[in-house]
Amino acid sequence: MTVTDELLANAERYAASFDKGSLPLPPAKHVAVVACMDARLSPYGILGLSEGDAHVIRNAGGVITADELRSLAISQRLLGTTEIILIHHTDCGMLTFTDDEFKSAIERETGIRPPWAPEAFTDLDADVRQSIRRITEDPFIPIKTSIRGFVYEVETGKLREVR
Amino acid sequence: MTVTDELLANAERYAASFDKGSLPLPPAKHVAVVACMDARLSPYGILGLSEGDAHVIRNAGGVITADELRSLAISQRLLGTTEIILIHHTDCGMLTFTDDEFKSAIERETGIRPPWAPEAFTDLDADVRQSIRRITEDPFIPIKTSIRGFVYEVETGKLREVR
Repeated sequence: MTVTDELLANAERYAASFDKGSLPLPPAKHVAVVACMDARLSPYGILGLSEGDAHVIRNAGGVITADELRSLAISQRLLGTTEIILIHHTDCGMLTFTDDEFKSAIERETGIRPPWAPEAFTDLDADVRQSIRRITEDPFIPIKTSIRGFVYEVETGKLREVR
Repeated sequence: MTVTDELLANAERYAASFDKGSLPLPPAKHVAVVACMDARLSPYGILGLSEGDAHVIRNAGGVITADELRSLAISQRLLGTTEIILIHHTDCGMLTFTDDEFKSAIERETGIRPPWAPEAFTDLDADVRQSIRRITEDPFIPIKTSIRGFVYEVETGKLREVR
């Protein structure tokens, strides 16, 4: 029995008490959140989001790569979101290595160097700021009036805005 | 006052009753979930996940691009996850357009054709299967013994496995 099997039992319980079948496709709050995949960071918990409220985009670091720009373009152009919230967090795994180290370790093991940047960073606030700039400089995202970035503190549960 | 401001008030309430400050960095359940960003799909609700349990990776469609392979490689290699769960869903926005249409619409408006694939699809089950294959064929993800794909039914709350 895998953990996946355990989680599927939870999914059956979720379906058994499900009452949200009539929610519309576009997010009710017109917000897209981009956050780190970290297990301790729940955008639902932190921001008080419920099913139907917001697009939630996540990856290692909460960084902005081509795929997040794709998702944000689709979110705004097809589904009407107008505000973007970025969330990095303290004690992030991305602070524990360098891109060169990680790529070299993989190359030593597999004989192939990854063609992508791992996107490690050393300064949380600086990476939030440059992530925002990756969005503001993108030609395909139409609405840039509310793009705000935050650091979530996993130790305290607090969300701190990066200025 | 933006919606972001409203959500920040929720974040203050979350921090005020926060009691999870000692959770470790690696996900307790050793699972990484890749799901669509859709507002109606809450991986926490569906799978019964709590803070600390699992990596959650999300984008438009729940598709696998270079950035999801990056996140999964980091998840497994640095943070010890061993199982992968993919979740697409019914009534997905990605079923409502074609890549060519979306890119042409953006090109007409901005004068630039996006260099990325929008990743629209016409068959949910087929896209779950080919997404799994993008992972199984990737040379940088070491553990491929439990990669399972699902379609979440937004109308019923049920999670159906794709075989």
